[in-house]
Amino acid sequence: MEKSINPSLSLAAQFTPQISTSIITGMESFITQVEGLEEEFIERLRKAVNIPSVSADPKLRSKVVAMAEFLTSELKTLGFSVEHRALGKQAAVDIDLPPVVLARLGNDKKKKTVLVYGHYDVQPAAKADGWSTEPFDLAVKPSGQMFGRGATDDKGPLLGWLNVVEAHKKAGVQMPVNLCCCFEGMEESGSEGLEKLIIAEANAYFAGVDCVCIADNYWLGTKKPCVTYGLRGCSYYEIEVSGPSADLHSGMFGGSVGEPMTDLVQLMASLVSSDGKILIPGIMDQVEKLTDKEKALYPEISYSMDDLHSAIGAKTGLFDDPVSTLMSRWRYPSLSLHGIQGAFSGGGAKTVIPAKVKGKFSIRTVPYMDMDKVDEIVYAHLNASWKTLGSKNTMKPGLVHRGPWWKSNYDHTNYKAAADATQRVYGMTPDYTREGGSIPVTITFEEALQRNVLLLPMGRGDDGAHSTNEKLDKSNYINGIKLQGAYLHQLAIT
Amino acid sequence: MEKSINPSLSLAAQFTPQISTSIITGMESFITQVEGLEEEFIERLRKAVNIPSVSADPKLRSKVVAMAEFLTSELKTLGFSVEHRALGKQAAVDIDLPPVVLARLGNDKKKKTVLVYGHYDVQPAAKADGWSTEPFDLAVKPSGQMFGRGATDDKGPLLGWLNVVEAHKKAGVQMPVNLCCCFEGMEESGSEGLEKLIIAEANAYFAGVDCVCIADNYWLGTKKPCVTYGLRGCSYYEIEVSGPSADLHSGMFGGSVGEPMTDLVQLMASLVSSDGKILIPGIMDQVEKLTDKEKALYPEISYSMDDLHSAIGAKTGLFDDPVSTLMSRWRYPSLSLHGIQGAFSGGGAKTVIPAKVKGKFSIRTVPYMDMDKVDEIVYAHLNASWKTLGSKNTMKPGLVHRGPWWKSNYDHTNYKAAADATQRVYGMTPDYTREGGSIPVTITFEEALQRNVLLLPMGRGDDGAHSTNEKLDKSNYINGIKLQGAYLHQLAIT
Repeated sequence: MEKSINPSLSLAAQFTPQISTSIITGMESFITQVEGLEEEFIERLRKAVNIPSVSADPKLRSKVVAMAEFLTSELKTLGFSVEHRALGKQAAVDIDLPPVVLARLGNDKKKKTVLVYGHYDVQPAAKADGWSTEPFDLAVKPSGQMFGRGATDDKGPLLGWLNVVEAHKKAGVQMPVNLCCCFEGMEESGSEGLEKLIIAEANAYFAGVDCVCIADNYWLGTKKPCVTYGLRGCSYYEIEVSGPSADLHSGMFGGSVGEPMTDLVQLMASLVSSDGKILIPGIMDQVEKLTDKEKALYPEISYSMDDLHSAIGAKTGLFDDPVSTLMSRWRYPSLSLHGIQGAFSGGGAKTVIPAKVKGKFSIRTVPYMDMDKVDEIVYAHLNASWKTLGSKNTMKPGLVHRGPWWKSNYDHTNYKAAADATQRVYGMTPDYTREGGSIPVTITFEEALQRNVLLLPMGRGDDGAHSTNEKLDKSNYINGIKLQGAYLHQLAIT
Repeated sequence: MEKSINPSLSLAAQFTPQISTSIITGMESFITQVEGLEEEFIERLRKAVNIPSVSADPKLRSKVVAMAEFLTSELKTLGFSVEHRALGKQAAVDIDLPPVVLARLGNDKKKKTVLVYGHYDVQPAAKADGWSTEPFDLAVKPSGQMFGRGATDDKGPLLGWLNVVEAHKKAGVQMPVNLCCCFEGMEESGSEGLEKLIIAEANAYFAGVDCVCIADNYWLGTKKPCVTYGLRGCSYYEIEVSGPSADLHSGMFGGSVGEPMTDLVQLMASLVSSDGKILIPGIMDQVEKLTDKEKALYPEISYSMDDLHSAIGAKTGLFDDPVSTLMSRWRYPSLSLHGIQGAFSGGGAKTVIPAKVKGKFSIRTVPYMDMDKVDEIVYAHLNASWKTLGSKNTMKPGLVHRGPWWKSNYDHTNYKAAADATQRVYGMTPDYTREGGSIPVTITFEEALQRNVLLLPMGRGDDGAHSTNEKLDKSNYINGIKLQGAYLHQLAIT
């Protein structure tokens, strides 16, 4: 039943004296309404999953565009003003990139404006890959698991924002904030063109945004919601060692020439030890010291060694306790040796002395490592190690790419609102998590808009994003919609 | 002009009283005759090069067979009795292997019988690969270089034996020995089926063979002929390290799991140092001590550091003098790291933690290393090194393949005959060389026939076998024919 609210007046204008109370009342009505709309919301997700918007496959590009059209139609029905931004041609295949769907709802200067980001493209999927059900038909099981490509990554979380608006409309509750949406269609294929657009629109379409919320990651496990405040960066290097002008036969030349592989393996062995310690002097000096406050976050986090073991399919963790394990992934740097280009890499045997080899490794960086300083330290170590080898070959270290770490201020109202909303919907304080990998758009939004960015996941750690049998639990979907809406309400009063 | 010799009588029967003198006279006549037949011999080589008998290309298999037919026809014309031995189907492609061409000339119990080996197949070649001339048209340059695929590897040396017989016939000189030929058509593709045939025919077709001569290698350099008395063996290993059940993302898991690549690189670094020293304890204990007699061979050998530098296209040799360089290739073991299977090996960047990696390396073995003992020492070292890493991953060392080293007795009459013939034809003592690689057929003949085996090359070190612009110098071809014939004469009197 709709309440008689004048939609032309802002929520603040109507309820100025008792705004907090009114918003809380509104939030309760909204939450109740979400329960009643479960079938509609699942139906919306079903329609979205049904469109195979696989960005990696140029042959399915029209489906990605069809998904943008579906979203646009839904957004318009809900009252959003919608614009498409073309990003030009995809460099590798010379076909049009799918549009970025920009949408606005509300323009009340007295309300905060929240930018929400999501992506409407998905990873490839085929039944033949091992799916139990058709990947582009949402299969809702009696257990509550809803299988389908994109269910959790990222169609469910993205549609969450539309569902929030619908529930408000149906409940007759005004939206507590202005919404600004940025939905892209190339996230699974490198977000080509997005960074430039965000920078260009920072003071244009995105003007007036107060904070950013990204719903495109996952709970750490399966039971406890979380807010995510940090990501590691990545500095990716290669070491090129060259000697002979062409590959040599190890029978004819082995023993008489300095072999580039021998030198490279010595250098790679000087970078990291089997217990995961980075052996490059100076790297650990830049790492943020662990404060008691940060330390106190960890024991609360719902994570066990079994979670690690089931994720990696082995009991080969470097630590025996969950706190050390999580800290090693989130707040300490790591160094991984990825492989060697130019050496023999096939099955069987080849008696080759490779003439030129490139060792690949990367360092996951954390606060407050300076990327330039890291490069400098890495090169200095490689050059010093090289000298001790006394090789006549040539060694050339190089940077392949790098991206910064990100750590948000989780004392910000953006996080407080998310935590309060979690308490309201789930009855518990969320875990404060980080992730070991990088989500470049996070940093782009923070730097371009100079606003606090929050990662607020909807799905669980076992949803299988990018994998076969991707799923989203119905409870995560429905409670996630409540959480997104409650977060907006809490933002309005925080 | 032909001498009036009764061809039905053996040389020995006709000249019993003055056999040495007579044979020397015969050798001189033969050598003179070779000079006069230069055009015919080059024409024979031209016809052979013109048949693209590429064993690696199943589409050219009929050309390999055509080459066998050409040889058979030539051999029969020269008086050989010829047999083809079928070797069944080639395993990988299920088409018939080309036949082994077996041929006999002479059956005089009073003469020695010499088995000569050669191969009539060639490496692939196409003008587009960078050849200056059509690879299957012999191009004879004014410089005397004769370009064409197979010119030096191994059609020239193989036809040498036929030319030797033709020159004897034309000179009216009886052959000083019985000849037994074994010409194969799959040498460039692993000699599939040959070993079995040699073992089977050891006491059948090859019965009565006194010694073996293989003309399928090269002078060390470009100026001095050599006889080759040794080859290194090869024991090829892999080290498998596995941990997670699937590849992991280095962002999500880096720092918290023991990475197989980290462990593998530590193990590989423990095998060999940049100065080429094998770090596996016990390996060097088995190496034959250098005697004064062997040492005295080396300074005579025509080899300079420039030869090494031009061969490898760089100045990255491990030693500064030719003797150490040659010894390191011939009489000392070496260890080469060939590559890693299962790791990232492409261009660019991939942030993967490979779940299972296999490091490949091989040891070139020398007298008197025992292959079983080498395996044992290698495994013991890897297991001991593994323990020091303290890794929870799993390490499994394994043998991929192995073949023995070979060292012939160069005091044998077989070598003395070759050295005397070299003195006669080139006016110098040959270099006594070894090779760093392996030629398995050498060891097969020695073991199956229990006879001394000699490697007597025709071409030069810069002939470019297997490469573009393969060539044979006219002087090497013509003098090589003289050398092969003179060798047979010297054998008869040594």
